[in-house]
Formats: sequence, C-alpha cells, structure tokens
Amino acid sequence: MKNKGSIIILSGPSGAGKNTVFDELVKKSDNIVQTVSVTTRNPRVGERDGVDYYFVSVEKFEELIEKDSFIEYVKYGDNYYGTLKSEIDRLTADGKTVILVIEVNGAANIKKCIPESTSVFIVPPSVEELRNRIVSRGQNTESEVESRISIALNEMTYKDNYDYCVVNDDLETCVNNIFEIINSI
Amino acid sequence: MKNKGSIIILSGPSGAGKNTVFDELVKKSDNIVQTVSVTTRNPRVGERDGVDYYFVSVEKFEELIEKDSFIEYVKYGDNYYGTLKSEIDRLTADGKTVILVIEVNGAANIKKCIPESTSVFIVPPSVEELRNRIVSRGQNTESEVESRISIALNEMTYKDNYDYCVVNDDLETCVNNIFEIINSI
Repeated sequence: MKNKGSIIILSGPSGAGKNTVFDELVKKSDNIVQTVSVTTRNPRVGERDGVDYYFVSVEKFEELIEKDSFIEYVKYGDNYYGTLKSEIDRLTADGKTVILVIEVNGAANIKKCIPESTSVFIVPPSVEELRNRIVSRGQNTESEVESRISIALNEMTYKDNYDYCVVNDDLETCVNNIFEIINSI
Repeated sequence: MKNKGSIIILSGPSGAGKNTVFDELVKKSDNIVQTVSVTTRNPRVGERDGVDYYFVSVEKFEELIEKDSFIEYVKYGDNYYGTLKSEIDRLTADGKTVILVIEVNGAANIKKCIPESTSVFIVPPSVEELRNRIVSRGQNTESEVESRISIALNEMTYKDNYDYCVVNDDLETCVNNIFEIINSI
C-alpha cells in the first residue's frame, strides 16, 4: 500500500506569484499534482472530461453542493467551478502531493477544514523590499509610507495563520524552499 | 436625477496586475468604486459592517443565493463571500462607475449576465515580452518555446471575449488607458 500523500495549501496576496510557483513545483516532480476541477461551463475545443475539467450539468453540481462534496466552489453569473473533497482523497490515497492554490480570503478556512494540510504563504517581493525601504530610508511622502506600512501590516496578519511563510524574491529559490518543505512533511 | 453609472469588468490572467490597476483607478476618481462584499466570516477587529463587508449569517447568505441575489459568490470551506446584484444597482444608480475585479474563468460569464457592462482584459507585460522574444530570437529550448507559445495563445483566446484589451507594460500608462476607456463610455 502506498503512503498517503500530503495536501499543500498555497496562498498569498495577488501578485505574490502563487500560480507561477505552483507551475514550477509541478514541473519538479510527477508526484506533485493539481486537482481536476468540476465545472458547469461547456468544454472548449480540445478539452477532455476528467483531464481539463469534470464537465457536469448545473443540476449535478447543485446536487454535489447539497451533499457538501466541495472543499471550495465559486459561481460566476450562472457557471459553477469547484474542487471536490473526493478528488483530493483520490490523489492523496495514490500517494500524490496535492497542491491547492487558494486566495488569501479562503486559505485559513480551508486549512481549518483540512487540519492535516500544510499551508504555505508566499510573500510578494515588493512587500519585503518596501519594508526595507521604509526602515532604511525616509524618501516617501507621509501618506505613502502610511499606506504602504498598512499594506505590509495587513500581510503580516495573514501570515500568522500559515504553517510556513516563503518570500518570493527569486522564483527559483522560492520554489526550492517550498519543495524542501514538501519533502520534509 | 443622476446619470446611471457604468460597470467595468476588470480581468486578466494571474500576474497581470488587475488588483494593482484597480487600486490605482480608485485613487484617480471618487466616482470609481468597488462593491462592498457580503461574507459569513466573523468581522476582524476594526472592520465595520457595510464598509469593509456586509456581515451576515450562513442562513441569510443561503437565502440570498436562493433568491439569485449574487452576480458571483465563492464558498471556501464553510465561509461564503459574494457580490450582490443590488449593490451594483445601488452604486450605478448613484452615478458611480463600479469596477468588478474577476478571474479570467468568470469574466466572460459575468459579462453575459450584465450585457451593459464593459469588459477590460489586462495583458501581463511578460506575455507581450515573450511574444517578441519568441518571434525575434531563438534562444529557448524547443519545449520552452512550445510551452510559452501555448500560454500566449491561450491568453489570446481569452482576449477575444473582451471589449477592450490593455497591456500592463507600464502601470501608469495602463491605468491611464483604462481611465480613458471609462471616461469614453
């Protein structure tokens, strides 16, 4: 029997590069995978059911919502997109490391729902840079400094809710750091 | 009576800078606003109901879903976040330009649901740069070129669904271009 794989929640503010980091992590190992999402939108030319998406009807999707089958889902206008809990179970049972890329808004709550997951917060380089700048220089206008410090502080509150925090100063270093975290779990 | 305000759907792939562009647009005019979202999560210290979010119970949120009150909503674990159609109506009735920042996945569908809206696609600088690089040089490995062209082509398909397409090569220029689009509507 294979060892159960782990679940990584990858999050961070917009612009932190979480999707790019995800793409690079997947390239590093066949064992690191993304879940296939369920959607009610029509398949585009070349898209395959079960590979690009699981394509289902609105009725079927709403039935899955009723059954509490999704760890997260979104509805845009009248199209749904969601991630099945069973899809995560299927992949981890197969020994895969499953990465969930989640907006900052949702990451803490998903961590609460999957306590065995490991959450990684990616800090955009600019936040680190600006912190250095605020500390070491004094060239910004008062309101600029104020607004930037407020952003940085806001980022810091979010960071406290995560198991790991990695700065994306250099993409390769950031990806390697997260890869090491994955291998150490 | 005030003129009815317009609705702008701001989208683009992750890393295109749509949230940064949004922040800058809001700074340029008091008339450009974001909707206040509804959420079932608990307010944090300092957050005000009706300003930061409309804080409601899960029961209330699900009642609003039943009534088809949301243009978009998301559920992370057991917390909901959503944008009310009535909130958009309230702001446009007041003459405001409402900006909805939407993932690429959802933008086309929201445009379909609000046909009078104007959709703007922000192209990340790297896509433009890489296109130039692919065309003018030949230094990448075959698989790199292939994967990059595939990304670029994918971006291009999305672009066709939008009313406007603006490259975010230089933030200030990009913001000014979108500001002109808003003023021309």
